[in-house]
Amino acid sequence: MILLNTPLFNSLDTLWVLICGCLVMFMQAGFSLVEVGFTRPKNSVNILMKNLMDFSFGSLAYWLIGFGLMFGSSIGGFIGNISDDSQSIFGTLSPMTFIFFQTVFCATSATIVSGAIAERAKFTTYLLLSLSIGIIIYPIAGHWIWGGGWLSNLGFHDFAGSTVVHSVGAWIGLLAAKMVGPRIGKYNGKAKAIPGHNLTLGTLGVFILWFGWFGFNPGSQLAIDGAENVEKVSLIFITTNLAGAAGAVASMLVSWRRYKFPSLSMTLNGALGGLVAITAGCDVVTPTMAIVIGATAGIILPFAVEYIDQKLKIDDPVGAVSVHGVCGIFGTLMVGIFDTQNGLLYTGSFAHLGIQTVGVISVAAWALGTGYIVLSILKKLFGLRVTKREEEEGLDIYEHGESAYN
Amino acid sequence: MILLNTPLFNSLDTLWVLICGCLVMFMQAGFSLVEVGFTRPKNSVNILMKNLMDFSFGSLAYWLIGFGLMFGSSIGGFIGNISDDSQSIFGTLSPMTFIFFQTVFCATSATIVSGAIAERAKFTTYLLLSLSIGIIIYPIAGHWIWGGGWLSNLGFHDFAGSTVVHSVGAWIGLLAAKMVGPRIGKYNGKAKAIPGHNLTLGTLGVFILWFGWFGFNPGSQLAIDGAENVEKVSLIFITTNLAGAAGAVASMLVSWRRYKFPSLSMTLNGALGGLVAITAGCDVVTPTMAIVIGATAGIILPFAVEYIDQKLKIDDPVGAVSVHGVCGIFGTLMVGIFDTQNGLLYTGSFAHLGIQTVGVISVAAWALGTGYIVLSILKKLFGLRVTKREEEEGLDIYEHGESAYN
Amino acid sequence: MILLNTPLFNSLDTLWVLICGCLVMFMQAGFSLVEVGFTRPKNSVNILMKNLMDFSFGSLAYWLIGFGLMFGSSIGGFIGNISDDSQSIFGTLSPMTFIFFQTVFCATSATIVSGAIAERAKFTTYLLLSLSIGIIIYPIAGHWIWGGGWLSNLGFHDFAGSTVVHSVGAWIGLLAAKMVGPRIGKYNGKAKAIPGHNLTLGTLGVFILWFGWFGFNPGSQLAIDGAENVEKVSLIFITTNLAGAAGAVASMLVSWRRYKFPSLSMTLNGALGGLVAITAGCDVVTPTMAIVIGATAGIILPFAVEYIDQKLKIDDPVGAVSVHGVCGIFGTLMVGIFDTQNGLLYTGSFAHLGIQTVGVISVAAWALGTGYIVLSILKKLFGLRVTKREEEEGLDIYEHGESAYN
Repeated sequence: MILLNTPLFNSLDTLWVLICGCLVMFMQAGFSLVEVGFTRPKNSVNILMKNLMDFSFGSLAYWLIGFGLMFGSSIGGFIGNISDDSQSIFGTLSPMTFIFFQTVFCATSATIVSGAIAERAKFTTYLLLSLSIGIIIYPIAGHWIWGGGWLSNLGFHDFAGSTVVHSVGAWIGLLAAKMVGPRIGKYNGKAKAIPGHNLTLGTLGVFILWFGWFGFNPGSQLAIDGAENVEKVSLIFITTNLAGAAGAVASMLVSWRRYKFPSLSMTLNGALGGLVAITAGCDVVTPTMAIVIGATAGIILPFAVEYIDQKLKIDDPVGAVSVHGVCGIFGTLMVGIFDTQNGLLYTGSFAHLGIQTVGVISVAAWALGTGYIVLSILKKLFGLRVTKREEEEGLDIYEHGESAYN
Repeated sequence: MILLNTPLFNSLDTLWVLICGCLVMFMQAGFSLVEVGFTRPKNSVNILMKNLMDFSFGSLAYWLIGFGLMFGSSIGGFIGNISDDSQSIFGTLSPMTFIFFQTVFCATSATIVSGAIAERAKFTTYLLLSLSIGIIIYPIAGHWIWGGGWLSNLGFHDFAGSTVVHSVGAWIGLLAAKMVGPRIGKYNGKAKAIPGHNLTLGTLGVFILWFGWFGFNPGSQLAIDGAENVEKVSLIFITTNLAGAAGAVASMLVSWRRYKFPSLSMTLNGALGGLVAITAGCDVVTPTMAIVIGATAGIILPFAVEYIDQKLKIDDPVGAVSVHGVCGIFGTLMVGIFDTQNGLLYTGSFAHLGIQTVGVISVAAWALGTGYIVLSILKKLFGLRVTKREEEEGLDIYEHGESAYN
Repeated sequence: MILLNTPLFNSLDTLWVLICGCLVMFMQAGFSLVEVGFTRPKNSVNILMKNLMDFSFGSLAYWLIGFGLMFGSSIGGFIGNISDDSQSIFGTLSPMTFIFFQTVFCATSATIVSGAIAERAKFTTYLLLSLSIGIIIYPIAGHWIWGGGWLSNLGFHDFAGSTVVHSVGAWIGLLAAKMVGPRIGKYNGKAKAIPGHNLTLGTLGVFILWFGWFGFNPGSQLAIDGAENVEKVSLIFITTNLAGAAGAVASMLVSWRRYKFPSLSMTLNGALGGLVAITAGCDVVTPTMAIVIGATAGIILPFAVEYIDQKLKIDDPVGAVSVHGVCGIFGTLMVGIFDTQNGLLYTGSFAHLGIQTVGVISVAAWALGTGYIVLSILKKLFGLRVTKREEEEGLDIYEHGESAYN
């Protein structure tokens, strides 16, 4: 990778993006806790290890290969030229700062998958799947949207990654959960809930994720110097926070009405769903519309979880597909409606909504297609799933030789 | 709400206040863990849910109503005009940044109450109480002190909220704990300690709160550009940290002497007590006096906990009233003595101490008065307390249909 | 302590260093969780208390004495003059900001020791040992390297403290672990593993430490204004992150090969080992060499743990000596080789490596010498170790009168 240093770094912008990158990095802890908390204690070591390796392998892979494919000068709008970084992408940032920020984003995408196939996937297989996401699948989708590729040229708007980060992870998670199959005992007759072992840690995880989202969304402005950036970043803080809050409240109310109880686990996922949904358009919608988007995501979420669990009978232990996939897609489409510049609501034109739809579908096709190829190869080479005995007695002992709690 | 954008935003100040706002937001995780850790596992879902809803409902309510009441142009020094924000309050900040920062403060105040009435209050009742705090009680007290109201005109000094945030929450917590009554089994004959279920998480919570306090206090300067702000903010870091440290050490020593053991739970509360106490005057006292204030708060704290628990027989499971109320009031009064500009110690005049006392009493009267009205209405409409059976078997199953640990 | 305020503070630099200081402070939570997670639940209160007191006592002691000894004008290159701070050290920072940042570093050094002697050391003894580190041992070593002392004059390079922070803590930890003796049952015949009680919290601790390292290393640049600082800070983010990632991957692979399983606990320590190792040279090595350094540290680590545990038969429950000592020394020496300006690899000269070796050995001699004196005195006065019964039934009940879990 060739990195020419431009001498025009803006110190303030760099500081801003570095701190936001730290917050995004810390989201790894949040994902780990949510996934551990929502599953059984016999698989905690496995889940923690997967999250730790997502970030570790992901950081190395993205540095060596992924970043170049995503942000190298575009080859036909499809892929970046790894040996030729275009200078313009760095804006006022130091190149290394830009790379750091993109690295922590990449790791997030891979992490989403680990939740969807928790408690039964093989560790080796997961590692290689995660590497494939970090090296190829995510960077190329990222190139289309953020690296000067064809979708960005079309005008597709996915500010901080409802589609490119969250839905990519969720599509692969959905596919992998389907291919790996449900956990033993999950679908004997009707869908059985398998409760998580520590909602306190799950809640802490959600708070950490919410905290980290203030790096994820506002940091994606990549600058804070000057009145325009200041206004934009400040708006993003408000829209992000309101959408998360509205999502939590909405999911709580739905669960209260539908299951007679205000469910904590549903409310937690509602907060995340609202945050995922606003991620695409946090910079172009009004605070009021952010509340609408977040609340709608929070209403949709419990139904999405039910549908995937009970109709599709796909076993997603932490609801990752609903949170990151359904809400991610929903939020991306809403940009086509609520964008104050180009949205249907303001222009009366369906053009922007059409482009958003094209983006959502293309990325879905890409993630599912490449995910299927990778998973099929891994299935042949190593198998996707641990043995029945390993699953029943816990992956921790059999795959890692230690248990989380003693 | 009308928000006119001033074009003179300072990028650096905005960045600063946004990051501090993130840290304050993260304190929600700290409060959750402290409250969960210091109580029993059968009520963890309930506590987590209350904390999550504080922040979610609070963010929405403060955006829609609370902010305007607090910072709208003053109507007689008592309340803000919700439809007319005065421009001057934003200083060099983007309005949205200012609102974000104030939002996370508001959520803190409501959260304090949830600890004081943990393990027996009705969820619905709590939600509505919390909403009342966020919409009316806190914003109006806030208007008096920070929004250009009558106490600020008098010269009352409560820099980051020992009184307006902490004592408001604590007064309502005290009243609510009294009105809800003690937990079953707490006062059969003499006061019985009901130990918390996870001091590890409680300690993590305190570390998170301490970390967040570096947003709470220094961020309240609302600016960091220029030598004056830099000096002030830096001083606040030092005074805040020293007071927290001194509070922890002092409470440890008191507990060691009084109970024969250096108690972790008392030490944790001592750290919080020191931090609460310095919050009012962190910007106007010397580091040495910060140590004095923090240490004294740490000495007072165990006695306050004992007094409320054993003499008043008010059951406050996490010591919220002692930490946020007693130490908050103490710290506010100490400004009257140790303020290097106006304090008794430097001027020989009791004037400032008098004004601080007026502020403390007025806010107490306001919080207790409005709190009593709200609680009385809620008691009539829904009742304050769960049934005996629900309490004994745990609020998690009966109020939320799920338990935190499986 | 005399603090003259220079009027030339840089607001941006101050903001930067304050935020980095917050991140470093938060590492205390990370250390606590790692130490608690890797040990048994009957000693959790004790460990948490030690960590809390490290930071609390440390903050007070460093403010009153330590800082002056470390950064006062040099007396013969050996110790700072506590009553005469040289102005030049503050650079563009407000003095209070500089002190805050140095305070949180000091607390880190003491914390390392608590892990090495976990589960059997007396609380009083530990407190006094920790105070000695914060008041004397760390500040004087710090003066040599960062305060204008003789090692800095020689050209010794320890950018963010692989030697001065990490190895000082580790040497004293090693000595203390040896002098206190192993836990009961640890060495009956061959070394027996005593598994920790909560690897989920241990992992959260490592994520928090990793997060905090982005304050620790990049913050040590003490400035971010201007192109040179921006580039340097950005580079440090990349080298730090890559080294941590490489350390985690390397330790995982070694454990996989050597123990047949990819061990979570070894991988966590590998991440920390990589981070410790890059700390000395994060500002002067290329990203590729950061991967080499981190990976090598991650390879060395499992062998170091084994060697100390099984050959030396020194009982270090959390592997603190291997992580902070072995990797800290290794990383410091690697600066002599990989420093792009002065390293052997680039200059062909062994001079720099020689100086790095001198620094490592001198600091080791200092830490072991003073540590031995302090520990010997404490042994005489109070004893180092709790009684057999206290150890067997748990320090929490006997030393603190409460248990962490109920």
